[in-house]
Amino acid sequence: MIKSIERAGAGLRWIDQTKLPGKLSYRESTDYFEIIRAIKRLEIRGAPAIGIAAAYGMAVAVEKARVFDLAFIKQVGSQFKKARPTAINLFWAVDRVVARAEADGSGAVSDSGCLWQEAEAIHSEDAEMCRKIGENGAELIEDGETVLTHCNTGALATGGIGTALGVIYTCRNRGKNLRVFADETRPLLQGARLTAWELKQENIDVTLICDNTAGSLMRQGRIDRVIVGADRIARNGDVANKIGTYSLAVLARENNVPFYVAAPSSTFDRQVESGDLIPIEERPAEEVTDCFTTRTAPEGIAVYSPAFDITPRDLVSRYISDTGVETGGRA
Amino acid sequence: MIKSIERAGAGLRWIDQTKLPGKLSYRESTDYFEIIRAIKRLEIRGAPAIGIAAAYGMAVAVEKARVFDLAFIKQVGSQFKKARPTAINLFWAVDRVVARAEADGSGAVSDSGCLWQEAEAIHSEDAEMCRKIGENGAELIEDGETVLTHCNTGALATGGIGTALGVIYTCRNRGKNLRVFADETRPLLQGARLTAWELKQENIDVTLICDNTAGSLMRQGRIDRVIVGADRIARNGDVANKIGTYSLAVLARENNVPFYVAAPSSTFDRQVESGDLIPIEERPAEEVTDCFTTRTAPEGIAVYSPAFDITPRDLVSRYISDTGVETGGRA
Repeated sequence: MIKSIERAGAGLRWIDQTKLPGKLSYRESTDYFEIIRAIKRLEIRGAPAIGIAAAYGMAVAVEKARVFDLAFIKQVGSQFKKARPTAINLFWAVDRVVARAEADGSGAVSDSGCLWQEAEAIHSEDAEMCRKIGENGAELIEDGETVLTHCNTGALATGGIGTALGVIYTCRNRGKNLRVFADETRPLLQGARLTAWELKQENIDVTLICDNTAGSLMRQGRIDRVIVGADRIARNGDVANKIGTYSLAVLARENNVPFYVAAPSSTFDRQVESGDLIPIEERPAEEVTDCFTTRTAPEGIAVYSPAFDITPRDLVSRYISDTGVETGGRA
Repeated sequence: MIKSIERAGAGLRWIDQTKLPGKLSYRESTDYFEIIRAIKRLEIRGAPAIGIAAAYGMAVAVEKARVFDLAFIKQVGSQFKKARPTAINLFWAVDRVVARAEADGSGAVSDSGCLWQEAEAIHSEDAEMCRKIGENGAELIEDGETVLTHCNTGALATGGIGTALGVIYTCRNRGKNLRVFADETRPLLQGARLTAWELKQENIDVTLICDNTAGSLMRQGRIDRVIVGADRIARNGDVANKIGTYSLAVLARENNVPFYVAAPSSTFDRQVESGDLIPIEERPAEEVTDCFTTRTAPEGIAVYSPAFDITPRDLVSRYISDTGVETGGRA
């Protein structure tokens, strides 16, 4: 399976996901500003992946600066935290690296090693959480079923096999043949560009649809389960995830299709009480109005483009995590 | 208000809607094959507009052939009927023109005049139906409200001011200021390209959203009413309309937002018992995979792209027609 992020000496190497599916192109940098920029530009995206990238990015910064200084480390961390607001994994990963520096850093530059260790731990733990999510989720799905997914939650989005897509890969590895419908996921088409690409690479039967087609498919009885990832899950179980998730959850309940949210422990935010308190990033109008180089909306048109929405716990059938499967409010 | 279709001597003149919003370009032809092609290519689209174009197209064919022959007229009509399968207005308009030829045609070529008359009657009656739909619908909407609409149902889609957009224009003319959210309407972005353009031309406050954002807006309480058009309404009240309509209807009910379908009498099909018997056109994969010149999905990817879906009567609050307002199953 593809690796979307990897340490490369004193730097980070990543797949520039904005170039997919046309081109599988890797970028490498020892400049942490470049890594922040890559997160902002969605070259690196997916809640777990941006956490991992930020952790590596902090090690990259210290290594390059040749200064092991807690104030500097915290300042780099706060720059990473500003890259994107919704996914909790980013904040969680930065806080882990800062805590490690506080605990283990001797003040010697050679101790950037402890930051690399922490970043690598975050990375390999994420891979392990993906593996467990896959195992826990695969129990819920039968051979021959058709699942619908949204956005990209696979190897590109994580440090391992993915969350929702990890469940699909694990089913395949256990001999359960699934059919997958992938929402294209406007505006940036992560479903069309990334999920369709990943699943095709893995020879999984995937059909691409426009986001507005999912409801009709469910009504026709052609979807057995909906499975999505999450960017942040509040203490009450509300789920922040890619815009359109809420609609899928309502349509799934209307059509008696189970609705699963697959996410690692690092996505659960115990600090935020409910979904409505999660900050929702708004994206630039051009992502909607300029459809991949061709202008497809009138000049000067107003646009509302939130990147995420909130799905209340009542619409979730199951949460699939590395620690097990929990019932949601719909169960 | 813009005229999307007009008789031009012995031919038809129309706006090539595939060029909008970049360019307002008119095409003209005295070749009925060109008109069929324009309907297939969605240069002319919108259920009422394609009916009107087909009616004119039949007059164009007879005028050019210089043969007034019922068998020929029927054959031209059946070619028009094959252009697109879902909107009933196309079939209804062709049948009207054939009936007129049967009733009034003398067999003389000069009698192509009766076909032009019938086409012009269909056109002007449609404009009048739009006007009445606007009046009937405007009663239901209050000053200051926010409405959400899908696809394009305005002057571009009809022979008059439109159906759902006609209601919005009539509100404006009566001094009711509305705010409109327009779904972009994938795959061909009729909302972004056409509705956003039409409403901006008319100085109506419009904000463009991705289709998958409508549910979140409704959940936030930011939408007072949803109003859409229809391509065909079955005898039991089921509505075939642009893909995504069904999802909006479910989301509207979930969030207690009234859901209105605005359509002229010519869109009601008394022959078809229920929505599930309405043929649903499937569109080519490229409309999904090639996002306006840039390839945005992997080569060889499977695509499911129905142009329409079925919204059951139970999800409709009101049908707004030229003959009045009827309650739906949700009322």
